[in-house]
Amino acid sequence: MLNIRQAEADDADAIWSIIEPIIRTGEVYTLPREMSRHEALAYWFAPAHRAFVAEDDSGIVGTYYLRANQAGGGSHVANCGYATVAWATGRGVARAMCEHSLEHARSRGFRAMQFNFVIRTNDRAVRLWQRCGFAIVGTLPKAFLHPQAGYVDAYVMFREL
Amino acid sequence: MLNIRQAEADDADAIWSIIEPIIRTGEVYTLPREMSRHEALAYWFAPAHRAFVAEDDSGIVGTYYLRANQAGGGSHVANCGYATVAWATGRGVARAMCEHSLEHARSRGFRAMQFNFVIRTNDRAVRLWQRCGFAIVGTLPKAFLHPQAGYVDAYVMFREL
Repeated sequence: MLNIRQAEADDADAIWSIIEPIIRTGEVYTLPREMSRHEALAYWFAPAHRAFVAEDDSGIVGTYYLRANQAGGGSHVANCGYATVAWATGRGVARAMCEHSLEHARSRGFRAMQFNFVIRTNDRAVRLWQRCGFAIVGTLPKAFLHPQAGYVDAYVMFREL
Repeated sequence: MLNIRQAEADDADAIWSIIEPIIRTGEVYTLPREMSRHEALAYWFAPAHRAFVAEDDSGIVGTYYLRANQAGGGSHVANCGYATVAWATGRGVARAMCEHSLEHARSRGFRAMQFNFVIRTNDRAVRLWQRCGFAIVGTLPKAFLHPQAGYVDAYVMFREL
């Protein structure tokens, strides 16, 4: 049984253990691969972010943050970043976090959610976000330098709430 | 004769006098309309930004900043924000700044430039960026709350360098 709750300072070790390998691969996030633990956690827990964790009997298996994607006239559109621990992929953690984030965003009055940079080679994510109701509304040509695949497209994905 | 050069701390008054009215209208930037001078200049001169000014015989008539749009595998794509003083619109200042920024981005090794949020009602800007070689690669539905027009679309615009 997966429980999703707001992250606390005590969750920092678990969050770092999930996001560090993803950052190090350089295949998914537009974050520097060499980012330090301190920098990464400062980003995940940025003042404008709200961070969550997903836990089951084995402990914390996923984390995400939610923020306004833009300020001013763009502040009704939310944005999220998600991460699942490698050994728990395929168990619905990301989908559960996405659904939780959509509900949380709705409850805070956001009217839409946007993902700014979904890398085309990340098929699992693209398909999952589509199943969660997101559409590809833009394609950024060769906007991501993938460590293995070279320059690849990235998608902008969007859905109303 | 327009000269474009890197901005210095002494240019802060001129830059603020250009961007303040644009921020206050809330019609163009996704910045809070109530943003203070201090916050706005901290944004314009952010460590990751490089700021420029355009000046002619009358003084500083425009300003822009350039930055990497993303970190990590997205850091080869530049992003800019431009502002022209109201009384100088229609004199080619924005176009000259855009061309300068494209050249500067090329010289720093950027391979493309992306504008994340060009508001559909800002026809002048959309047409100008198209004349400067940018294509609309994405449409963000009703992603901007315009003070007069209500919820309007925003474009993602992109060009290779």
